Amino acid sequence: MTEGIDAAAKRYKRPDTEIVTVSPSYGPITIDNFYDEVLSSVGVIQEIKKGLAENFDGFVIACFNDPGLQASREISNAPVIGIAEAAMLLACTVAYRFSVLSMPKRGLAAVRELLKRYGIEDRCASIRLIDVPVLELESNLAKMKRLLISEARKAIDMDGAEAILLGCAGLSGVDKEFEKELGVPVIDGVVAAVKILEALHDYGLTTSKSLTYRPPEKKVILGFPGIFED
Amino acid sequence: MTEGIDAAAKRYKRPDTEIVTVSPSYGPITIDNFYDEVLSSVGVIQEIKKGLAENFDGFVIACFNDPGLQASREISNAPVIGIAEAAMLLACTVAYRFSVLSMPKRGLAAVRELLKRYGIEDRCASIRLIDVPVLELESNLAKMKRLLISEARKAIDMDGAEAILLGCAGLSGVDKEFEKELGVPVIDGVVAAVKILEALHDYGLTTSKSLTYRPPEKKVILGFPGIFED
Amino acid sequence: MTEGIDAAAKRYKRPDTEIVTVSPSYGPITIDNFYDEVLSSVGVIQEIKKGLAENFDGFVIACFNDPGLQASREISNAPVIGIAEAAMLLACTVAYRFSVLSMPKRGLAAVRELLKRYGIEDRCASIRLIDVPVLELESNLAKMKRLLISEARKAIDMDGAEAILLGCAGLSGVDKEFEKELGVPVIDGVVAAVKILEALHDYGLTTSKSLTYRPPEKKVILGFPGIFED
Amino acid sequence: MTEGIDAAAKRYKRPDTEIVTVSPSYGPITIDNFYDEVLSSVGVIQEIKKGLAENFDGFVIACFNDPGLQASREISNAPVIGIAEAAMLLACTVAYRFSVLSMPKRGLAAVRELLKRYGIEDRCASIRLIDVPVLELESNLAKMKRLLISEARKAIDMDGAEAILLGCAGLSGVDKEFEKELGVPVIDGVVAAVKILEALHDYGLTTSKSLTYRPPEKKVILGFPGIFED
Amino acid sequence: MTEGIDAAAKRYKRPDTEIVTVSPSYGPITIDNFYDEVLSSVGVIQEIKKGLAENFDGFVIACFNDPGLQASREISNAPVIGIAEAAMLLACTVAYRFSVLSMPKRGLAAVRELLKRYGIEDRCASIRLIDVPVLELESNLAKMKRLLISEARKAIDMDGAEAILLGCAGLSGVDKEFEKELGVPVIDGVVAAVKILEALHDYGLTTSKSLTYRPPEKKVILGFPGIFED
Amino acid sequence: MTEGIDAAAKRYKRPDTEIVTVSPSYGPITIDNFYDEVLSSVGVIQEIKKGLAENFDGFVIACFNDPGLQASREISNAPVIGIAEAAMLLACTVAYRFSVLSMPKRGLAAVRELLKRYGIEDRCASIRLIDVPVLELESNLAKMKRLLISEARKAIDMDGAEAILLGCAGLSGVDKEFEKELGVPVIDGVVAAVKILEALHDYGLTTSKSLTYRPPEKKVILGFPGIFED
Repeated sequence: MTEGIDAAAKRYKRPDTEIVTVSPSYGPITIDNFYDEVLSSVGVIQEIKKGLAENFDGFVIACFNDPGLQASREISNAPVIGIAEAAMLLACTVAYRFSVLSMPKRGLAAVRELLKRYGIEDRCASIRLIDVPVLELESNLAKMKRLLISEARKAIDMDGAEAILLGCAGLSGVDKEFEKELGVPVIDGVVAAVKILEALHDYGLTTSKSLTYRPPEKKVILGFPGIFED
Repeated sequence: MTEGIDAAAKRYKRPDTEIVTVSPSYGPITIDNFYDEVLSSVGVIQEIKKGLAENFDGFVIACFNDPGLQASREISNAPVIGIAEAAMLLACTVAYRFSVLSMPKRGLAAVRELLKRYGIEDRCASIRLIDVPVLELESNLAKMKRLLISEARKAIDMDGAEAILLGCAGLSGVDKEFEKELGVPVIDGVVAAVKILEALHDYGLTTSKSLTYRPPEKKVILGFPGIFED
Repeated sequence: MTEGIDAAAKRYKRPDTEIVTVSPSYGPITIDNFYDEVLSSVGVIQEIKKGLAENFDGFVIACFNDPGLQASREISNAPVIGIAEAAMLLACTVAYRFSVLSMPKRGLAAVRELLKRYGIEDRCASIRLIDVPVLELESNLAKMKRLLISEARKAIDMDGAEAILLGCAGLSGVDKEFEKELGVPVIDGVVAAVKILEALHDYGLTTSKSLTYRPPEKKVILGFPGIFED
Repeated sequence: MTEGIDAAAKRYKRPDTEIVTVSPSYGPITIDNFYDEVLSSVGVIQEIKKGLAENFDGFVIACFNDPGLQASREISNAPVIGIAEAAMLLACTVAYRFSVLSMPKRGLAAVRELLKRYGIEDRCASIRLIDVPVLELESNLAKMKRLLISEARKAIDMDGAEAILLGCAGLSGVDKEFEKELGVPVIDGVVAAVKILEALHDYGLTTSKSLTYRPPEKKVILGFPGIFED
Repeated sequence: MTEGIDAAAKRYKRPDTEIVTVSPSYGPITIDNFYDEVLSSVGVIQEIKKGLAENFDGFVIACFNDPGLQASREISNAPVIGIAEAAMLLACTVAYRFSVLSMPKRGLAAVRELLKRYGIEDRCASIRLIDVPVLELESNLAKMKRLLISEARKAIDMDGAEAILLGCAGLSGVDKEFEKELGVPVIDGVVAAVKILEALHDYGLTTSKSLTYRPPEKKVILGFPGIFED
Repeated sequence: MTEGIDAAAKRYKRPDTEIVTVSPSYGPITIDNFYDEVLSSVGVIQEIKKGLAENFDGFVIACFNDPGLQASREISNAPVIGIAEAAMLLACTVAYRFSVLSMPKRGLAAVRELLKRYGIEDRCASIRLIDVPVLELESNLAKMKRLLISEARKAIDMDGAEAILLGCAGLSGVDKEFEKELGVPVIDGVVAAVKILEALHDYGLTTSKSLTYRPPEKKVILGFPGIFED
């Protein structure tokens, strides 16, 4: 899955952008629920800390739950973008309303909360989910694609969706294939996030340190061997 | 702080309720921001797992950020309550609108997101924050209380608050003192959560396992020594 | 119907709680619409007045329209809870979203207004109503239960409901039977209200008298023989 | 107060409109709170019933709480308008946002609930209240007018109000005087309701009997001597 | 189409109201989309300017997109009403929720934006559209009426609509015929706007000039021969 | 003003991006109100049509009212971005909440409607306006900057703004100067729109032609000499 994400990010990056895709050493191997999201957030923080030490210009969190996004913005001087956020914001510029296409069914609450957090529920025509765990994307991609295309068609025909968001980083790479099939823009949040990061970098914009995203207060943190020892 | 929480929980519990207050071995010593919240969620999960092994009947997450609440509901058959959620819900039964009183100033976003998540923004008259880190509650309680009382008065007089929520577990124990001073109900979420947990237990209600809070899919989890090794 | 309510309330109350169930001498015999609600509110006020004279510690308004709830809070020093409010608030602690199950179809507006008043529309997955008057619960319970179970299943399968609220006091007593059948928490507001009232009482909380629920201004009231003569 | 309402209604009515202003024999003499509202709703129902027997073409409920409005729509074939509703709707056609000017301070919740019920919170710039009971309008009108004008000026200058709604039927008659003073439209809901009723009548529109406002189911109603005996 | 609008307006006007129906010399011949709306707004401004020179007492913009409504309010001392706005506001007085019936399908966004602008989304049960351009109303009225009636029935039976708004001025005149067929109020915005304008005129109300609708700042305007040359 | 916009756009564009800044021959010379907005929309359409004939890859509408944005999306195969929309969306990636800084005071309604249209009201901390027409930016820039900086400080200190949006294309070029002064990100929508357009182009995304933004139906358009003659 990390390879697919890396390939998607690199396909659309600008020539002078360097992309390094990493998989953290803390967290679950896929993210299907809130429990996975909490644990993966630690891995995100871990990698942001490493990346800051290496002076990266910005960070993409390549999971559609945007795990640890707000925490990452607090600890980073460089901009940090989540792929759900990026896909949603970019979709608003090419469609009146979009639908999110993802899995598994239980993920409904997570997507609804993202829409509320970003404040754009009203631009979302529907959340269409198939009830298969994320991991099946690796073992049974062809079947998954058929199921997803079928849900996407319902989103367009019945819910009024004018663009489709791929609601899982594991779907990176199918965007243009789906787009051809469906006839509406299909957005991979990984690409969207890379492009917004490039835009922010060119413009010299980074996360405001005024109130919410001020650096965290210094304090003792227990546990997490290998992350906070330095 | 853990002692204060323990005392508050025990002061209002029913005689046949047994309360055990714990402080996890993963996480920051206080919670002032999203970064702290993410890390503390791991400690919450750790303790819920231990508690489940010991057959506890329910769990209170004693931090006003409600860290790891949704993840905890996924892994637990017993009900789990956050103190922000409990305080907000109970407040709705005694006041038309309430205000949240807390610290530090940067915490505004976190409280706003809780209100959105629980869907009751409209019942919140205002969020009144003083700009001091949570840890000062231990070193300088008298001054903190003066500052908080003064903000609470503004909430009542200027914002139309009819009840005050103590927006930090570190404030456990000041509820009745503040109530006397302010003349409106003052709610400690720790107590509210214990009482709602007792109510759920009596009624035989626990978290729905139908969609959002189904048990997490089994999968490999990296890192977190001591938590997932068993 | 009053007997069913009494039985439900007593089944889950704490041993030291004393419950007295009354049926007022003003108002319609069942409540199906706004007209019934207005008239029943007078009966509610009448009984609260009597109860206050007898020093009751709290009041439950046992109709899912929560008739006269705000007026009752104004006249009472003891806490007053409506069963719709109680069921909705408690549901939020065990389910991401709930559905309301009730009758008749015309009641849609009333439930929608309660959700708006309590500010938690967003936690409601759907309102599922069968088009039969409340009174049929007495004459034809078996058939009503079949129809309601069938609607509840649709709420769970099609609307994403994770808990079911019994939207009528006449349904008191079927909660655990429905719960077994449906596999999700089923909440009887009568029980929910009793348990929240016990919680408030233990904690020493009562309605704020700060703004909205101040005692009514003294004034001449015409009509209503037997209610305001004292 | 009834005289003032009658005069306002008649000042702007069309020549062929006949207006009869009545004061019911059930209910409080003024309406300051939810308790008064519930009791006054009975009087409203009583008078609508009488009016229906006399074949009136429509009804105005002349209190800014719109007491009993929905119940009245259920029992009446002729249209029924509340003065808050009428003032708010008409204001939307002459101002981007309006403010409600009323009394006493505790009335905030009632106005907020009306705005939610009618669904137009977003068009309301502010609710400005002075803390005096309605009855003082009779005993101390000059002082009340000074206080109200001063609040209205704040609504215009600080809140962006572009029109002022007189939030109490007791203010009927001061509209044009206030308008001259303030330089923005000032709307008396009594007049607004009469004019909308005339409009509905001309167009042959009356309350939909399709779902919410179907006639109430026939049933036994206890109490209320003189109202339901026929 | 202009004739149908003229006839509808005149059918329900008061005897002393004089109505002049005009078709501007700038703009598209029908309005199906945002592009048409922008261009038609210029024609609306042109006619309002002419009408102001002739001292008309008020203006109705007879297109359900309400094109140029806010601009017109800025330049006019006399009140200006859009037919969507008028139909929506009047519907609120006779139905708990209404549905909009219109064409073509792409018009969904426009109606949604009107509902948001007027702030009454919550009163709209559904937007039901048939996918035929407005112009077909002239060439194939019988078929269009069948399709629309069928959609309206779905709105009533499936969406809970209690009134139907004719969402296109081209439908002026079918209101009472549809009403008879459907059994719920059917509202033609042209009539609604005329009646509200009469109401405003009787009451002496006109657009507030306080903030949003102040007269436009004097400035050079390029292009638009025949409109700004004077 | 056009020069300032051109300079800002070119300062942050990528080396291989070619920018052509034009001023249309239809419309007012500045945009302060809805009337100006309607008329300027025609000029926007005119220039988009020209640009399409010359095969431009995308279009920026350089006015913070985003005039004609939706109409432009209908007629263009290439993406079209408004500067308000671009600034708001980009701000969401660097700040929890932003404030809009603009003029004149009457512009409040326009900004509020944009926030509603884009669905992100909740991310806006405040709209801070000074009461001076846009044209004064040319004649009295130094004074305007002082007034605006002072309002921006209030937005940050009192409203919790974490980023400032320059709410007028006439402010293009002051972003980095203001940013230095204020200590939070200051966003010029012109730059934001150029960067998002580049992002869309790289990714091969353009406006969905599925529902809302389908090409307009062919039809006769009257007036507008020089625009629709071809």
